Amino acid sequence: MDQELSAQDLRDAWPALSSEERMEGFRALGAENAEVFLGALPASDRAKMLGAMKNGERKLWFRSLAPDDAADVIQQVPEGLRSSFLALLEDPFRREVQSLLAYAEDHAGGLMNPRFARLRPDMSAEDAILYVRKQANDKVETLYYGYVLDQGQHLLGVVSYRDLFTAPASSRIDSIMKTRIVTVPEQMDQEAVARLMADHNLKAVPVLDDQGHMRGIVTIDDIVDVVQREATEDIHKLGGMEALDTPYLQTGLGQMVRKRAGWLAALFLGEMLTASAMSHYENEIARAVVLALFVPLITSSGGNSGSQATSLIIRAMALGEVTIRDWWRILHREIRSGLLLGLILAAIGMVRILLWQALFHTYGQHYFRVALSVSISLVGIVTWGTIAGSMLPFVIRRLGFDPASASAPFVATLVDVSGLLIYFNVAQAMLRGTLL
Amino acid sequence: MDQELSAQDLRDAWPALSSEERMEGFRALGAENAEVFLGALPASDRAKMLGAMKNGERKLWFRSLAPDDAADVIQQVPEGLRSSFLALLEDPFRREVQSLLAYAEDHAGGLMNPRFARLRPDMSAEDAILYVRKQANDKVETLYYGYVLDQGQHLLGVVSYRDLFTAPASSRIDSIMKTRIVTVPEQMDQEAVARLMADHNLKAVPVLDDQGHMRGIVTIDDIVDVVQREATEDIHKLGGMEALDTPYLQTGLGQMVRKRAGWLAALFLGEMLTASAMSHYENEIARAVVLALFVPLITSSGGNSGSQATSLIIRAMALGEVTIRDWWRILHREIRSGLLLGLILAAIGMVRILLWQALFHTYGQHYFRVALSVSISLVGIVTWGTIAGSMLPFVIRRLGFDPASASAPFVATLVDVSGLLIYFNVAQAMLRGTLL
Repeated sequence: MDQELSAQDLRDAWPALSSEERMEGFRALGAENAEVFLGALPASDRAKMLGAMKNGERKLWFRSLAPDDAADVIQQVPEGLRSSFLALLEDPFRREVQSLLAYAEDHAGGLMNPRFARLRPDMSAEDAILYVRKQANDKVETLYYGYVLDQGQHLLGVVSYRDLFTAPASSRIDSIMKTRIVTVPEQMDQEAVARLMADHNLKAVPVLDDQGHMRGIVTIDDIVDVVQREATEDIHKLGGMEALDTPYLQTGLGQMVRKRAGWLAALFLGEMLTASAMSHYENEIARAVVLALFVPLITSSGGNSGSQATSLIIRAMALGEVTIRDWWRILHREIRSGLLLGLILAAIGMVRILLWQALFHTYGQHYFRVALSVSISLVGIVTWGTIAGSMLPFVIRRLGFDPASASAPFVATLVDVSGLLIYFNVAQAMLRGTLL
Repeated sequence: MDQELSAQDLRDAWPALSSEERMEGFRALGAENAEVFLGALPASDRAKMLGAMKNGERKLWFRSLAPDDAADVIQQVPEGLRSSFLALLEDPFRREVQSLLAYAEDHAGGLMNPRFARLRPDMSAEDAILYVRKQANDKVETLYYGYVLDQGQHLLGVVSYRDLFTAPASSRIDSIMKTRIVTVPEQMDQEAVARLMADHNLKAVPVLDDQGHMRGIVTIDDIVDVVQREATEDIHKLGGMEALDTPYLQTGLGQMVRKRAGWLAALFLGEMLTASAMSHYENEIARAVVLALFVPLITSSGGNSGSQATSLIIRAMALGEVTIRDWWRILHREIRSGLLLGLILAAIGMVRILLWQALFHTYGQHYFRVALSVSISLVGIVTWGTIAGSMLPFVIRRLGFDPASASAPFVATLVDVSGLLIYFNVAQAMLRGTLL
């Protein structure tokens, strides 16, 4: 075992360290470890580290990055510093980075690596192998496919290394390449790229510009990050807040509260409608206080069933299992699910009220009508919660927003008001002439 | 464009097709397309397709799978059919599959591919390249690293292709290999493997058994599936249900209701405590019906703030940003966040009640004390919801369960009862001698 600080130690301590301690720790890593460590940091941290370095050190490390990582760093540093970062690079590296900067970060173009193995159609397999070996000099640890381009950089075909290595040495590349190729346009959203690669079991996919020139490849290891980030974003939104841009422990209190307060306040304003709805039934509550006892139970059941439905649909949408065209089929399924779930809760509710009545005489003379009011309302509210929860993501997507904004708390708030209306109307019908 | 059914068309239609239509569609694909299509199907669908084929066809397609995919299929078919599937394979493929079947599906061993490029330490770089070419004959489209093993299959080092291709032809492999290697044990959980690979920026990681023999590699493309599956599981659990094993549209109504009814009923039983809590304050409600009006507003604010906190913490845990040791730091942060958020809602609530009073005289003579009761309760409830939501995942993990079971609805249910106690106690203190 050697005495260097291990990258793992530094990673474990990282969130708790000050900027100075981070820099100290980074410098204590061996050169090889440090390069890997820097490459694995989130782009925002990498930019901060580089920003804090002196010029010579910064140049050294900045040049060690892959072009797409370097471009990410530049996107993270303040506007005024960007050109000074670019000036650290030499051509053709600088030009690669500059062209990557033109892309939106969450498009295929912003995700791609402009370095890939280029082959010509008239090469022999033998020459191609030599040529790949020559190209393997920089930042290519893993070999994906060889891409066959014409003089105008149009993609003609793809050769897998299996085919390249097993073909007779003299066979021409255009005789062994595959010509039916899955490609993506530069502007394709990264989630769509991730889905496409999963569907076709691809480890790398070529990115073409509008004129059909090949500009780079998106590789499967970039997709892992995309998938993690998108899931994080969806989970934060489903929890009823804006997604954080940074890891939890690295997010300042002020930013944390801002990301949460907006939705919390919006939901609070929406939920105030329940106070209005309740005051509409103030007389009923005054005459039959027993009705008020079940209000939290009723509203939460609607919210919980809605939360289930919305989580299911949002995840199915994110995975591409469900598209907007499926809404009608899903509505049918969810109505049946909601009815069944509502009947189950209604039965439990009925048993609970009758049992408590037998044991403690809690609910007065008209307990059976009260129990019926609660049970019938539950069927209606759970069914409605399920419908609202499953359809809200479709409505939000149709309006052009991210369906994950149909958070569990959002659905619960929607369902609460309507749940109260259902409950008090059922109760009015059931208890007229007795309690009301 | 050729006339074959495209794999994309079939994929789009897939969820809506019957088993017969699926088979028909699959047979209409060209052979090459069909192989890719089969490889990209979820293991359960692949097993169903193969199960429905005649023996000759089944043998053909089953043999076309990678060993880890074939093992997944066998795990999906009914117990009684497994040996007949294994019998379709020839050695050494069968032995590879059999040894994979010994592993749990969600461990590194169950995820790994037993085929990787093996090198010897005393080879020259030139020989190694030739040797890799020879090994590239089956199922190796993408080249990850070359693994240097001794006679006893112990891992001595790793060579990247960049280093292999750029080294002088005569240099010995043990002079160019890296010897500080990140490896994983066979039993490591797949989520931990995913995190490790992300931390070290690895595209493949070697899997070692207890004796230090190298058994296979886990590659980054398998990790994409792991990451997607784990995120789906967490999102379903966060929504307050058991995770589905199959895509939404392919899950039968019965199974769907079972996965949802358990938690929904449990939460319903828990929520019944609110009815008990409310009946404890029945006299107060009878005397001051105005108190009942704000019950849904109060309880939902606690639930929403808890939902935010629990989503944040569960995701941070899943990403390894937060471990169980951090609970104390997080408690501190969340208390401060909760207080701030509570104060914001309290201010909004106060304005709303005073405004409605000025406009509609809704809340009677003692409206200011009512407003104070609501606002003070909100600070307490939002703070408490935030604390409960952030700490529940730690408690659940400490008890040995999946922290994602600390779903938003679970937290909301927990917080509802305590929220009512806070509210009515604050109201008793504020309204004593006036309304109560």
